Amino acid sequence: MQPVEFRVTYESPNTWARLGELQTSHGVIQTPVFMPVGTQATVKAMSPRELVEVGAHIVLANTYHLYLRPGHQLVERAGGLHEFMAWNRSILTDSGGFQVFSLGELRKITEEGVTFRSHLDGSKHFISPEISMEIQMALGADIAMAFDECAPYPADYQYTKDSMELTSRWARRCKASHQREDQALFGIVQGGMYADLRKQSADDLVSLEFPGYGIGGLSVGEPKELMYELLEITVPRLPVDKPRYLMGVGSPDCLLEGVSRGIDMFDCVLPTRIARHGTVFTRNGTMTVRNAAYSQDFLPLDPDCDCYVCQNFSRAYIRHLLNTGEILGVRLTTIHNLRFLIRLMEEIRESISQNTLPEFREGFLERYYGGCS
Amino acid sequence: MQPVEFRVTYESPNTWARLGELQTSHGVIQTPVFMPVGTQATVKAMSPRELVEVGAHIVLANTYHLYLRPGHQLVERAGGLHEFMAWNRSILTDSGGFQVFSLGELRKITEEGVTFRSHLDGSKHFISPEISMEIQMALGADIAMAFDECAPYPADYQYTKDSMELTSRWARRCKASHQREDQALFGIVQGGMYADLRKQSADDLVSLEFPGYGIGGLSVGEPKELMYELLEITVPRLPVDKPRYLMGVGSPDCLLEGVSRGIDMFDCVLPTRIARHGTVFTRNGTMTVRNAAYSQDFLPLDPDCDCYVCQNFSRAYIRHLLNTGEILGVRLTTIHNLRFLIRLMEEIRESISQNTLPEFREGFLERYYGGCS
Repeated sequence: MQPVEFRVTYESPNTWARLGELQTSHGVIQTPVFMPVGTQATVKAMSPRELVEVGAHIVLANTYHLYLRPGHQLVERAGGLHEFMAWNRSILTDSGGFQVFSLGELRKITEEGVTFRSHLDGSKHFISPEISMEIQMALGADIAMAFDECAPYPADYQYTKDSMELTSRWARRCKASHQREDQALFGIVQGGMYADLRKQSADDLVSLEFPGYGIGGLSVGEPKELMYELLEITVPRLPVDKPRYLMGVGSPDCLLEGVSRGIDMFDCVLPTRIARHGTVFTRNGTMTVRNAAYSQDFLPLDPDCDCYVCQNFSRAYIRHLLNTGEILGVRLTTIHNLRFLIRLMEEIRESISQNTLPEFREGFLERYYGGCS
Repeated sequence: MQPVEFRVTYESPNTWARLGELQTSHGVIQTPVFMPVGTQATVKAMSPRELVEVGAHIVLANTYHLYLRPGHQLVERAGGLHEFMAWNRSILTDSGGFQVFSLGELRKITEEGVTFRSHLDGSKHFISPEISMEIQMALGADIAMAFDECAPYPADYQYTKDSMELTSRWARRCKASHQREDQALFGIVQGGMYADLRKQSADDLVSLEFPGYGIGGLSVGEPKELMYELLEITVPRLPVDKPRYLMGVGSPDCLLEGVSRGIDMFDCVLPTRIARHGTVFTRNGTMTVRNAAYSQDFLPLDPDCDCYVCQNFSRAYIRHLLNTGEILGVRLTTIHNLRFLIRLMEEIRESISQNTLPEFREGFLERYYGGCS
């Protein structure tokens, strides 16, 4: 028995989309799936039971943050991440790579690994592929990610090529050092904005036979059309029987376009982050409910939504809470935004099963973006 | 049918405590009761369903804050406070007096009312007894409070006497102008730290025949023993068949001592305020779980507690959340603290019915304060 079993249950005849079931020791996840981000072992403002209520079956946690605070050994002593954060559904941890590379001047990359300074106190740290595996094994998520280098955007061809090849060598080292039998290790395809490098990276990773594949280094500032083109080049080179995870992507249009190109998994801080700034998703596009325009608006955030918030609270009340700095305001916008994206994925899965994904996508985008996405 | 019906169901033979049922159009409240404070139409960090879960049957909201933001007319247009904040159990609003008088230099008192400047933007406002009634009728709580002057502590005899007499005159004006049939208006006894003034105030208020009586101006800095003495002077002058509400008091020892002296209702920001600073109640006294001492402590906040938090989360996790500024940390300490006080009241009611309140009180205080309260 593998730590993660993936089964494609239906293939769309008119798109690259497919339905699947991802089984971990903490449950079955219907794919395509959106994973809320719980950076510090908590999805910001949410309780575990609220995550269950909005329909989350898997959340992501960030290795870099948990390594710094509270430390992976402490999480291990607590019985692992599931026990520590009281979440008995599935968890995926990233490798720490993306966060470390985001530190910019604070980090230095060598063949061996990355030396960096903590964004919290400037203290010096070193993470290698082997150390990333050690940390992730201690955290004990159902799915760990290989330690990769995410090239900046823009980056020239030679830098991107060197970086991609380093990521392939690191992927091999990750696989060699990873040894937790109840945890799956996914590889990550890199290659920046260059089609031939994306192909090479995919081929390198696939040769290592991972049980799933992340596609990293996209949605980093490039035009969305370019991202979609690169997906069309990358996805066909990945095994059909393994899950494909487009990392850090979660706007409604990208979810629809990603699924249509064969992506099974997504994560993004977008819904929780914009919620904290008082912005919510609606069927008619985003709405900044914090604005004074909503101070006397007694409608729910989205009259079409089935979430706890939209069943009980008005825009005027939520606007009052945000305006007065009350915690409940951010709680309510967060619940709604997560439910919105997770419900969108439910509807996407339904449309795949009905062979109506293209029509659903067009109808949704027309209404959401008023015709221009 | 009165807007509020109160029935004493049991009188303790060995203390002044009694059990009662306070019926409003939003349900029955078992007394003695602790009321969480929802200053801005939200009990900080809590959702309405979490308030139900911790056992709250009535919450307090602050007239002064809601008058400023979002404004009582807006709340009225929303359908009243219950509808606005999605809370279908009972609500009590204070009169705004205490907050206005807390503004110190920013306010000026005349016979007519109080002129003050907003703590938010310095704008000038005027509240009279009639205006307080108008605001509270618009807010639409089940119980409104008369507009009183809360004398500062310490205050000399003459100041306190004049202030108490003003409060009595204002109480008469409140009663004359209050006209909402589904809302009860309680009077407030003042009189500072002077026994004869407390007696006079109680007699004045009782002559006006309110359906309930607040006791204000206590727990303002005086020794607790003095507060208890003043309760012993005041309570016997109040009608036995009306609820008695000790305003702004909520530490475990004061709840026990207040109930033992015949108090039926309490409110206090203490449990929610200390929660936001990372301090929680336990049977063995308060604990500042934010401290590093708890970083590897995998016990629940209070192993004897039945709340959601203590059933699911460890001190180490909550300490991590507080330490990293995560909203869930404050949510969890708040839920626990409110459940702790509400459960204490449940146990107090049980002990009254068993005629064991004195023993329960001694046992609780012995353990909570280690013998010295």
